[in-house]
This record gives sequence, C-alpha cells and structure tokens, in this order.
Amino acid sequence: MPHITLPVDVPGIRGPLTFRPETAQHLLGLAETLLRQPASLEPGERETIAAWTSHLNGCRFCTKSHAAAARAWLGPERSKALDRLLEHGDLGGQTAKMRALLEISRALQANVLGVTPELVAAARAAGAGDQDIHDAVLITAAFCMYNRYVEGLGTREAAEADYEPMGRRLRDHGYAGR
Amino acid sequence: MPHITLPVDVPGIRGPLTFRPETAQHLLGLAETLLRQPASLEPGERETIAAWTSHLNGCRFCTKSHAAAARAWLGPERSKALDRLLEHGDLGGQTAKMRALLEISRALQANVLGVTPELVAAARAAGAGDQDIHDAVLITAAFCMYNRYVEGLGTREAAEADYEPMGRRLRDHGYAGR
Repeated sequence: MPHITLPVDVPGIRGPLTFRPETAQHLLGLAETLLRQPASLEPGERETIAAWTSHLNGCRFCTKSHAAAARAWLGPERSKALDRLLEHGDLGGQTAKMRALLEISRALQANVLGVTPELVAAARAAGAGDQDIHDAVLITAAFCMYNRYVEGLGTREAAEADYEPMGRRLRDHGYAGR
Repeated sequence: MPHITLPVDVPGIRGPLTFRPETAQHLLGLAETLLRQPASLEPGERETIAAWTSHLNGCRFCTKSHAAAARAWLGPERSKALDRLLEHGDLGGQTAKMRALLEISRALQANVLGVTPELVAAARAAGAGDQDIHDAVLITAAFCMYNRYVEGLGTREAAEADYEPMGRRLRDHGYAGR
C-alpha cells in the first residue's frame, strides 16, 4: 500500500505524478528532454543508463519500464547486451564509450562525490565528449530522484505483461503527454 | 576544474544549467514549484529539507545555498535550529512534525528503499498529512539529483560571502528566473 493516498489502479510513478500535477509537468518535461530529444547519445543508450541506474538503486518499476523503453529503441539484437547488463552486471556487450559512461553512472549512483577525474578521462579516451558526459551524469542524477519518488511513496509495480507495451509507448509517444 | 567545459565565473549548479538550457528550464521549474509555491509546509521548512539532504549527501554548494535560503525565510531566531541541524545533526530545535519528516528524508537519502511504514506512521502521529509526506519525499529525491548534477560535473563552490545574498535572492525572486 502506498504511503499516501494515491489512485489505486495506477502503478509506479504515475500515482505520485497525479497527486501533484504542478511538479509532474517538470518531472515529465525533464524525462522527455533528457531521454528523447536529439542529443549525442542515442535514445536507446540514454534509456540504458536510466535502466542501469534504476537497477543499481533497486527500483524495479523504473528498471523494468526503462529497460523496456531501451529495448524498443535498440531492437532485439542489440537488446541482448542490455539483458546481460541488467541480469549479470555484465558491461561486455556495450560499446567502449557506453562502458565508460556506465562506470561513471555506477560511481555517481553510489556516491554523490563518486565521479573522479580518472573516470572522466577514461570516458574521453573511449570517445565521449562533453555532451555525452553531461547527459550520463544528469540521467544518473535524475534517476536517483525518480527512483526515490517511486519507492519513497511506496508505490506498487506494474504487471509483468505491461512493461513491453509501456516501453513501445514511451518510444513512440514519449513522457510529456502520458 | 569541472569535468566538462563550463562558464568559468559561475559556481555550483549554474554552470551545468547554462550548458544545457533545455533541461535547465525543467530543473529550475521543479525547484520553483517544490520549494516556493504554496504548499502545506512553509518555504523555510522546505528549504530546510533541501539543505539537510544536501548536507547528508556532502554537497557543499547546495547545502550552503539552500541553508541561506532557509535562513532568509526563517529569520535569525528560527535559524538557530537550522544551524544546530547542519552543524551537529541535532534535530532537537525542530518541530515534532519536521523531526519526523527529516527522519524520512535521512532514510531516503541513504537508500532508495529506506522509507518504512513505521517512519511514515511516526510522521502522521506528529501531525504530517499527505502533502507534507509527499513534499518531504520529493524534495529529498530532487536534491539527490541536484547534488549529483553539481558534484558529478566537478563544479566549484561559491565564495563564502556570496551565500547570504544568494539566499535572500532565492527567497525574493525564486529559481525560475535566475
């Protein structure tokens, strides 16, 4: 049962978003801009960072919904590397740049002060530019918020069968209008 | 030195906000709505939760700027309890409701899954309603993001003398327009 009165039929973050629409518009606008608008990283790569952060934080609703969005973008072949990442913490199937960004993400998820010059230098050596690094940091930071919003209010998970269509919907229609 | 190319004369979060204005508008809009618009908690109480979360996360820029904003709202007499909170972790000068909300905040800052039904029941027993609990959770969650954005990109602190006027400016003019 959620910790505050929320709509009963709505899983995950959508209950809290309904509770306070004035903050919801900014939370959704941030996700839309950060994950779906044009940037140096592909949307599928950005959704991968979102799912990875949520996995490290132990937020199952966000892990499954953003993994589904990442899969929708990446397609079945490239999604195998995502499955290995989320099931076994195996970064091996990712590009060198993504491996370095996922290491930055892991360090920052664990500790606000965790990003070192060495981690950033390794990302640059693997081809990451300023916008890649900026976006990896802000996506990780944002999911340290979204995950806490979802879990801190005690919301429930979605049914397993609902995540795959949710992922396609997020790819096709995005966050701002849902 | 910051981890990406940012304006040199701008401390704290303002450099990253300048780097990507499209995300900045949502980050600032969220802070404005969450901390300054009418809600069940006073702005000074909400800024206290923001400063407390930032203090627990070890983000000095956010701790000092939001403590300054809290002091600007609370006035000198009520600010003594804030100073004890941030200097010694002493919740004694806070109201019973704020003590319970600060305990929720501490649990959630440390762990995405940290908010227990017992902590929420204690807050309700101390007079907290749904909006108080919602806002304490979302402010804590949001500062787990802002703090990581500031520190994850290696920004620098402001000069000590700049925080007090910054706090008054945040009280009087807010976040959205800065």
